Amino acid sequence: MDTGITFAKGFTAAGVACGIKKKGGADLAVVLCERTAAAAGMFTRNIVKGHSLLLARENVRNGVARAVIINAGNANACMGERGESDALRMAELTAEKLGCKPRDVLTGSTGVIGVPLPVNRIEKALANIQLSKEGGDDAARAIMTTDTYAKQAAESVFIGGREVRVGGMAKGSGMIHPNMATLIVVITTDADIRRKALKSALKTAVDCSFNRITVDGDMSVCDQVLIMASGLAENTPIVYKTRNFKLFANALKKVCVKLAKMLAADGEGATKLVTINVKNARTGKDAQKIAGAIANSPLCKTAAFGNDANWGRLLSAAGRSGAKFNPSSVDIFIGSVQVCKNGGGLLFDEKEALRELKQKEVVYTIDLNDGKKSQTMWTCDFSTDYVRINADYRT
Amino acid sequence: MDTGITFAKGFTAAGVACGIKKKGGADLAVVLCERTAAAAGMFTRNIVKGHSLLLARENVRNGVARAVIINAGNANACMGERGESDALRMAELTAEKLGCKPRDVLTGSTGVIGVPLPVNRIEKALANIQLSKEGGDDAARAIMTTDTYAKQAAESVFIGGREVRVGGMAKGSGMIHPNMATLIVVITTDADIRRKALKSALKTAVDCSFNRITVDGDMSVCDQVLIMASGLAENTPIVYKTRNFKLFANALKKVCVKLAKMLAADGEGATKLVTINVKNARTGKDAQKIAGAIANSPLCKTAAFGNDANWGRLLSAAGRSGAKFNPSSVDIFIGSVQVCKNGGGLLFDEKEALRELKQKEVVYTIDLNDGKKSQTMWTCDFSTDYVRINADYRT
Repeated sequence: MDTGITFAKGFTAAGVACGIKKKGGADLAVVLCERTAAAAGMFTRNIVKGHSLLLARENVRNGVARAVIINAGNANACMGERGESDALRMAELTAEKLGCKPRDVLTGSTGVIGVPLPVNRIEKALANIQLSKEGGDDAARAIMTTDTYAKQAAESVFIGGREVRVGGMAKGSGMIHPNMATLIVVITTDADIRRKALKSALKTAVDCSFNRITVDGDMSVCDQVLIMASGLAENTPIVYKTRNFKLFANALKKVCVKLAKMLAADGEGATKLVTINVKNARTGKDAQKIAGAIANSPLCKTAAFGNDANWGRLLSAAGRSGAKFNPSSVDIFIGSVQVCKNGGGLLFDEKEALRELKQKEVVYTIDLNDGKKSQTMWTCDFSTDYVRINADYRT
Repeated sequence: MDTGITFAKGFTAAGVACGIKKKGGADLAVVLCERTAAAAGMFTRNIVKGHSLLLARENVRNGVARAVIINAGNANACMGERGESDALRMAELTAEKLGCKPRDVLTGSTGVIGVPLPVNRIEKALANIQLSKEGGDDAARAIMTTDTYAKQAAESVFIGGREVRVGGMAKGSGMIHPNMATLIVVITTDADIRRKALKSALKTAVDCSFNRITVDGDMSVCDQVLIMASGLAENTPIVYKTRNFKLFANALKKVCVKLAKMLAADGEGATKLVTINVKNARTGKDAQKIAGAIANSPLCKTAAFGNDANWGRLLSAAGRSGAKFNPSSVDIFIGSVQVCKNGGGLLFDEKEALRELKQKEVVYTIDLNDGKKSQTMWTCDFSTDYVRINADYRT
């Protein structure tokens, strides 16, 4: 069973080694839709943007696409005119191979910044590439940089009696941060869906998935989430804000949340997934500030790595987050163990807390008892391996 | 020669082991002024605040003080009424020993949050404490937590023919961040200075020293900078905004910058001091945002640890900082080696860059060529040891 990018009808894919990654291995992924697909994308808010990403943003504006091509190992960023023409060449070569227009190709690059993209290697690899239904796994592996495993997810939903499929692949690991850090996600669906509906569903799904995860607070210049819809499910076309729209949007959100949690759990050097639930805040923004401050705090993240029930760091991070709340009404739980009541320490069972901290998924709950708004973020712990991975990434 | 807290006339100090630190060693510092000193303080902006800090903030409001007492190993924070009464008891015991009023004692605590302060150990230690001119070094050692060495600095300045001395001690290491994270600083001077002038000089000095450093972006609930002025230099009293005020303020600033750079260089697990100079920004705020984003970026900091000339991470952090600038006019230097021109990569001498990165002080210069404002921040690299130190701090 294909469980990713080729799950939906109309899509084939391939992932090959073209020689851009220094360490070798698959580093070029291509996804093709057999007909012109409705398409949408979301892109990094970093004011420095990669050249391949900029071209994808340009090409997706008309709301249609045929193919996606992504290389790993080189970000094609900060290269001036050379970077722009390399991105264009990448699209042209793909279009030539697949028999479509260059403007129907969405390009993406991830890897080291400021090094020329060896487009000739992409050219050579494209000459022999074979796309297939089975190629989804290879494609998911080919977009990895420091990821330790390929991320794929899929969902089906019945819309007007027709099965509509949504599948996707994602890469991330370092620099994952709200507002989409080095993450590249490609989603495909066979839904027949209007452009506005597709764009809106994507935005909502990204907001409660990829914008809710962080690994190290950095944001990359190459992050993008792309979606293509083939329409081959032959459902009644999905229109914005209808019941069918909600069904589709929910399936898309499920795929995105699955992928997002995988990305957080596989953060560079991570040994566990950390879920931060902030409850009963005065405003959604306050809840978000606190969840974000904890998720990005190296002190909270190293404590998670060390299985240290150091709830004081959670409260301290909340306190400096800029959120408004009453410190003396805060309750904190590690898993099911309450460690802080009304802002003060409890004599809790350290063994129970340790058992919770040793799970592959640790849940921190910060209940502000101060309002009705909640927010969740996902992150990972901060390990000695995170530092090792990032200390010599480029050299 | 005393080069710290007892450098100025009128001050004696002591540092002893009272048994609060689990690992043993000095953990209680006392500083005494032989007469009532003018005093001022600056305190954490974290909305969660330690009880000892809150009492110091309360006691310094009248602008005078006689003594400072600080314990390490326990933050006396998040302990409710028990924490408040422990802080009060700490001040009372100190006042009793030194023969002053409890309200003239400024209290400080640093260490783990949410654990009761064993005040009885402070009581026992105070009974036998001996204050002296030579006790400055011991005091500086006694306030350390994960610091690897004691931080002291001193400056003299001649004001109206009289030598005015300024000396200080500081502790920091983890959680150091603009707006004063776990840092405790005590400054003494024998200047005769008006309260308003003292307060203003302290604020300016802190803004361009302790608020310009960061280790891991966290902010503690116990951070404070205290200053006492004995007046024993017998200079003409220093009045706000006069020429003499500027002389004094400059000496104070020098002491604070020296201490701040020592704190950044000795960040937890640090192997080097990293100076970030942002030049020619449109506004001071833009310069600050970029310097802060780079100084707090785990990716930039791990690259510094790994001697990796990964300037793309610097530009990427600048890009997500929220500052406005033109990416295609940015020049970046590592030490004296230019690695990026007009936002694009240069073919630079990797050996030269490596030589710069291997220094104990690495300087990154980001020239935006986009305005006239500049800002400097000091931080340290992010090492595997940082994670080790923080993974099991509490347990």
